[in-house]
Amino acid sequence: MNDGKRDSLIARYGADAVPAAGPWSDAISLLLNHRSIRGYKRDALPIGTLETLIAAAQSAATSSNMQTWSVVAVTEPALKASLAAIASNQKHIEQCPIFLVWLADLSRAERIGATEATRLEALPYLETFLVAAIDAALAAQNAVIAAQSLGLATVYIGALRNDVGRVASLLKLPPGAFAVFGLCIGYAADEAPSEVKPRLAQSAILHRERYAIPDERGLRAAYDAKLAAFSRRNDRIGDTWTQRVIARLGKTTALAGRDRMRAALVALGFPLC
Amino acid sequence: MNDGKRDSLIARYGADAVPAAGPWSDAISLLLNHRSIRGYKRDALPIGTLETLIAAAQSAATSSNMQTWSVVAVTEPALKASLAAIASNQKHIEQCPIFLVWLADLSRAERIGATEATRLEALPYLETFLVAAIDAALAAQNAVIAAQSLGLATVYIGALRNDVGRVASLLKLPPGAFAVFGLCIGYAADEAPSEVKPRLAQSAILHRERYAIPDERGLRAAYDAKLAAFSRRNDRIGDTWTQRVIARLGKTTALAGRDRMRAALVALGFPLC
Repeated sequence: MNDGKRDSLIARYGADAVPAAGPWSDAISLLLNHRSIRGYKRDALPIGTLETLIAAAQSAATSSNMQTWSVVAVTEPALKASLAAIASNQKHIEQCPIFLVWLADLSRAERIGATEATRLEALPYLETFLVAAIDAALAAQNAVIAAQSLGLATVYIGALRNDVGRVASLLKLPPGAFAVFGLCIGYAADEAPSEVKPRLAQSAILHRERYAIPDERGLRAAYDAKLAAFSRRNDRIGDTWTQRVIARLGKTTALAGRDRMRAALVALGFPLC
Repeated sequence: MNDGKRDSLIARYGADAVPAAGPWSDAISLLLNHRSIRGYKRDALPIGTLETLIAAAQSAATSSNMQTWSVVAVTEPALKASLAAIASNQKHIEQCPIFLVWLADLSRAERIGATEATRLEALPYLETFLVAAIDAALAAQNAVIAAQSLGLATVYIGALRNDVGRVASLLKLPPGAFAVFGLCIGYAADEAPSEVKPRLAQSAILHRERYAIPDERGLRAAYDAKLAAFSRRNDRIGDTWTQRVIARLGKTTALAGRDRMRAALVALGFPLC
């Protein structure tokens, strides 16, 4: 195994859980070295960077080529501040020079139906909502990888969903569009921690032919120790993974308003039938 | 603009709609040159390829590091045939040497809650379902890019959602897990068409600061002509994009059972509150 590959796998899994990975490429090294960055310089991006990232995003697969997503590029400080307030005051939204809001967007199809005087019966279904949200996610992930390849840092902001109605209002979204998540893009601050975060061992998430629950207690104990050590090094907290999952999912209050998202989406024009 | 960059942008947008893209990289060229492939050789993948792809997938961002996804790697011919039958008999599912089924998987968190004797109040919400589905999508997209960088072909199979209950039964999924989509991986058949598919102009999907509907009639007319020409060259049909969107969304019957997905998901343990 070449050194770069082995180092990447150790950083991602720990030396005790390196998978028996095979062929490798520079692009795979890039993917393995991804990390989310929560501190940004104010420096602007080079001209044309946004268009490059969007070209990468549009090159992702999209269900039946329907392209049921859009993106709003936000740079205005006041608008970023309003969005940050929705997202539990994450300061990096205000710091980063460009904040992309990725939309599940069925409104374009609705306008096609209206112009062509054709009722689009499939629009109200949960399935079509899910297609649009997944399309947005695939596109955004391509933009993330493109940004990383240019030396830029990124972090997804799911907390925009704390109040999807207010985001829609701020961004003047038409009915049938909603903000799935935000994405900060910029140059990492000098002091931003940048260690690769370890993940669960492959045996915890990869199944062969059929789902079979592995020795999760053992896998989780090993991972809890790794993540607690990572957390001590990077944010001085030292929580285990188990503690973090329980903190995030244990109480409805931790959803910070997202427990009301279903009703908010219906109001935005997604009946979720 | 260098030739490779310009060629990639022309292939993706047409010569009349090349965006003013900026910085570029080899990884961005790789992303731009993506295409979905629907014909495969039976050749097996090199040893360790699956583990490499999963390492790339696990390196994608995941909401609050919860890792609420799993994947089932299917190679058994009979099982692939059963899955293909659900997905409107797409023959490439049977042809490809490995078929990955990507799961939104809250069952792992449920097991943590059970082991730790803690009720996880946030699990039943639509928000948590969406987090899991998006996590699966981000992971899968990384696997797609990794595969492409190794010279492998891929195609997403959303039609697995035609019957999420039957897929769950075939793959022995626990409650709280569902198959978001499949992914064929393998070597493209010699005769598989492989032209890059054009997308809508950037001005159709990219908004600045706030959503503003562009001249969609003009943009759509230009794109309809491009896509009809693409379709004539590649599948000899010649439909416009408008015709395809209407065919896909116009009638509930085109959902091929996915209009019942909401009820099926509730039965699989996703209350979607």
